[in-house]
Amino acid sequence: MKGGCAAEMELVPIGLIRSPFWRLEEAPRQGIHTKEVSTIEVFAEFAPALEGLEGFDHLIVLYWADRAPRDALRSRRHKRRGVFASRSPARPNPICLSVCELVGIEGNRIRVRGLEALDNSPLLDIKPHVPELDCP
Amino acid sequence: MKGGCAAEMELVPIGLIRSPFWRLEEAPRQGIHTKEVSTIEVFAEFAPALEGLEGFDHLIVLYWADRAPRDALRSRRHKRRGVFASRSPARPNPICLSVCELVGIEGNRIRVRGLEALDNSPLLDIKPHVPELDCP
Repeated sequence: MKGGCAAEMELVPIGLIRSPFWRLEEAPRQGIHTKEVSTIEVFAEFAPALEGLEGFDHLIVLYWADRAPRDALRSRRHKRRGVFASRSPARPNPICLSVCELVGIEGNRIRVRGLEALDNSPLLDIKPHVPELDCP
Repeated sequence: MKGGCAAEMELVPIGLIRSPFWRLEEAPRQGIHTKEVSTIEVFAEFAPALEGLEGFDHLIVLYWADRAPRDALRSRRHKRRGVFASRSPARPNPICLSVCELVGIEGNRIRVRGLEALDNSPLLDIKPHVPELDCP
């Protein structure tokens, strides 16, 4: 499957992240290290899928770290740690996961606090954060 | 980008999930509803990326729900709720996220408790669950 066009696992961008972090050096390593607000622009065709999201305090944002290297298997930060034991965006599938505070939703624009994503990162998914499921 | 081969967002399967749930009707709706143990087989080439994972109690498992419909925007279970406000696998990018208890690691095989994935689901990523990041 690798190297080809894996139609059965084909990602579609569902939106874009507008963040104050334009360059890698400006972005916090993790969202909890920032109070900045980012705006998630969900493409209009997917806006109906947002209904009911306003009832949650925190969201799980999945985005594609399009500027991260994909060939790393070991952490550069931590010795003796592989990338699957780290939260670095550098990994075979650079899907980043950030638990963010929901600030507000207006139409297809969602404002969140605590997202470390670089500006223009492609959005893959949004899920409600559910403590019962996510905090064992 | 949709409809074509989005080379820049191309997923690679990094392993397979071996679970006791062969059919949709057998699988729990969420991992917390089962005590069953599943085995994650990470492909040998990615095994070095697992180093250090044994130090964590819980893992975040991302897998591709290859049997889920992708065209749903509204939840079938909850009225007035879009799929981004639900944890259903039915969503534009069927990336499922499950926080699982780490039971043990032997080589490139990881045993976890509390995974709702169907047998043979493609593995996309493993991350350590970090309460400081994941439980606001």
